[in-house]
Amino acid sequence: MTIDAAAPTPIEAVPTVIQARLTEFFDAVAPTVAAISPVVTAGADHLRAFVLNGGKRVRPTFAWAGWQCAVQTTDPQVNPDSTDVVTLGAALELVQACALIHDDIIDRSDTRRGRATVHRVYDAEHAESGWSGSSSHFGESAAILVGDLALAWADDLAGTLPRHVAPIWSAMRTEVLGGQLLDIVNEASGDESVDAAMAVMRFKTAAYTVARPLELGAALGDASADLIAALAGIGADLGLAFQLRDDLLGVFGDPATTGKPSGDDLVAGKRTVLIADGLSRAHATAPEAAQALRSSLGRQLSDAELTAARDILRDVGAVGAIEDRITHHLQQALQAIDDLPTGARARTDLANVATAIAYRNS
Amino acid sequence: MTIDAAAPTPIEAVPTVIQARLTEFFDAVAPTVAAISPVVTAGADHLRAFVLNGGKRVRPTFAWAGWQCAVQTTDPQVNPDSTDVVTLGAALELVQACALIHDDIIDRSDTRRGRATVHRVYDAEHAESGWSGSSSHFGESAAILVGDLALAWADDLAGTLPRHVAPIWSAMRTEVLGGQLLDIVNEASGDESVDAAMAVMRFKTAAYTVARPLELGAALGDASADLIAALAGIGADLGLAFQLRDDLLGVFGDPATTGKPSGDDLVAGKRTVLIADGLSRAHATAPEAAQALRSSLGRQLSDAELTAARDILRDVGAVGAIEDRITHHLQQALQAIDDLPTGARARTDLANVATAIAYRNS
Repeated sequence: MTIDAAAPTPIEAVPTVIQARLTEFFDAVAPTVAAISPVVTAGADHLRAFVLNGGKRVRPTFAWAGWQCAVQTTDPQVNPDSTDVVTLGAALELVQACALIHDDIIDRSDTRRGRATVHRVYDAEHAESGWSGSSSHFGESAAILVGDLALAWADDLAGTLPRHVAPIWSAMRTEVLGGQLLDIVNEASGDESVDAAMAVMRFKTAAYTVARPLELGAALGDASADLIAALAGIGADLGLAFQLRDDLLGVFGDPATTGKPSGDDLVAGKRTVLIADGLSRAHATAPEAAQALRSSLGRQLSDAELTAARDILRDVGAVGAIEDRITHHLQQALQAIDDLPTGARARTDLANVATAIAYRNS
Repeated sequence: MTIDAAAPTPIEAVPTVIQARLTEFFDAVAPTVAAISPVVTAGADHLRAFVLNGGKRVRPTFAWAGWQCAVQTTDPQVNPDSTDVVTLGAALELVQACALIHDDIIDRSDTRRGRATVHRVYDAEHAESGWSGSSSHFGESAAILVGDLALAWADDLAGTLPRHVAPIWSAMRTEVLGGQLLDIVNEASGDESVDAAMAVMRFKTAAYTVARPLELGAALGDASADLIAALAGIGADLGLAFQLRDDLLGVFGDPATTGKPSGDDLVAGKRTVLIADGLSRAHATAPEAAQALRSSLGRQLSDAELTAARDILRDVGAVGAIEDRITHHLQQALQAIDDLPTGARARTDLANVATAIAYRNS
């Protein structure tokens, strides 16, 4: 590592840096795609628009934070080569693009980040062109393939990283896909237990969104096994805080900030920890409320019905319990961050990011 | 490279060797999968059954043939370490599993290799369990995720190979996914031209099935750029011969050997080169036959209708023209194989495999 007089990139700049790296990637792959057909260029353009137009870049930010912990084990601040951690961040965003594009097919979602989902874009193109066959089936088919391209391209980028990160990268992909499979099986089979919701949360979101990116970034910075293990523990807490906040936003979030419809998780009938815990508490203390809450799941709701369902979740104590859990996990993480054997700035940055995701409103 | 007295593995043994490597892979990934949920173990088991129960292992065989060309540049025969080319073969079969599982959703196919397709397996499980929601949508959703796992795992295996093969591996995945996207757009938009069918064939099948595996195997054997280029040219010819034979089997194949329904491509309404050329020839010389052929596309056919459609394709000369093309591409490939600067056994094996796939009946 060489000492560089230039100011180090601040963690707040990660989204901008990742945007540039993703743009560079799409520019680089364009000739290969164009050599096949303009149809494939159009598909790559849909993916590019999806990837570049949004997203909080949570995973690249955690990867960066983990990497900072590894490379800033001593002050004063240095500015080590961040090429690999930037590539990692871009690769994480491409995995996420695959996950979202395929999830949107599975959840039959029409909008994402305030725009039409990829399968709906293709569906509309098919209908407008007057092509033969089912427009919706065509839309889903094309979006399956565009999501596959995103996953393949994520691996192309990750494949350029040092080999020792591969086992973490591999585990992360298996966990997010396996967690999503578990999620749809739980939903179909009607498993309403908090345990089932926690298992999905742990793999589909917590490990994938926080712990694995932190570990990957730290491994890229050649962190010790002890530091990686400490970050994995912090990531487990923060991942739960992240998802529990997501549960609250999925019922109480403001569409203007979340970009999702009001009460989205109720309408979709999702069995989040919030909803599972609310049902469980209502069953124990207010059977009529449990009945009313269950009848609000998986269908369109009027404003009055939505308000009533929200009131039940508050009244039975589920909302307060989730807020307490978030605070508990965040505090545990902040304590562990404070104890990390790394530079002050790496600890401060990680603590700030941790607090921001636990108390975010979008 | 060390000289080994043991007899080298014959190319005929590749399917057996690949089967063992795939079994080893599924055994190795089982604990990671089990740690998530029994639901994910069940998903991995569906994939394992799909991958292990069938397939001609065409891609691993071509990879092996390409590798032999690189390592047998001189006789007498030696037995170099084949670990990497076996891993490559297993990775190719996992990419193929993803491609087939997702294609079966797209084509709404009920059977594959004589068994229920993955989405139909999940569809049936959902229906038998009396779960909520649409069984067919659940089946497709689960199969999207199982296919994604196959692609991620293919990349996990490929990621252990020497770095210099990565650009070929990367191009191959983009080509097969892009070719499939082009295929569904051509089909929906009703592009019946032979040019459109040839573009799909070139990327979706020819490069992916023959040329890229040959190149990958050769690159693993540290082949010269000249040898890799020569194999790419041979692969282009053989890939076209492979797909043109597939076109004939898709209309004239015996279900007992192909494992697919009789006249499958007609029923599915595919615009293969055979069918595109048949339509084009009929338009020019026998408008009524063209009309009859077109009306046989994309619907169930009686035995008499199937026979009539086959007769049209023969009578207008499309079948003979495809056979001629197959012979032309095979002869061109055999000539080039004969000129390869490699050992006699490598050339003989490649020539035998080439002839077998050009004249196969399944």
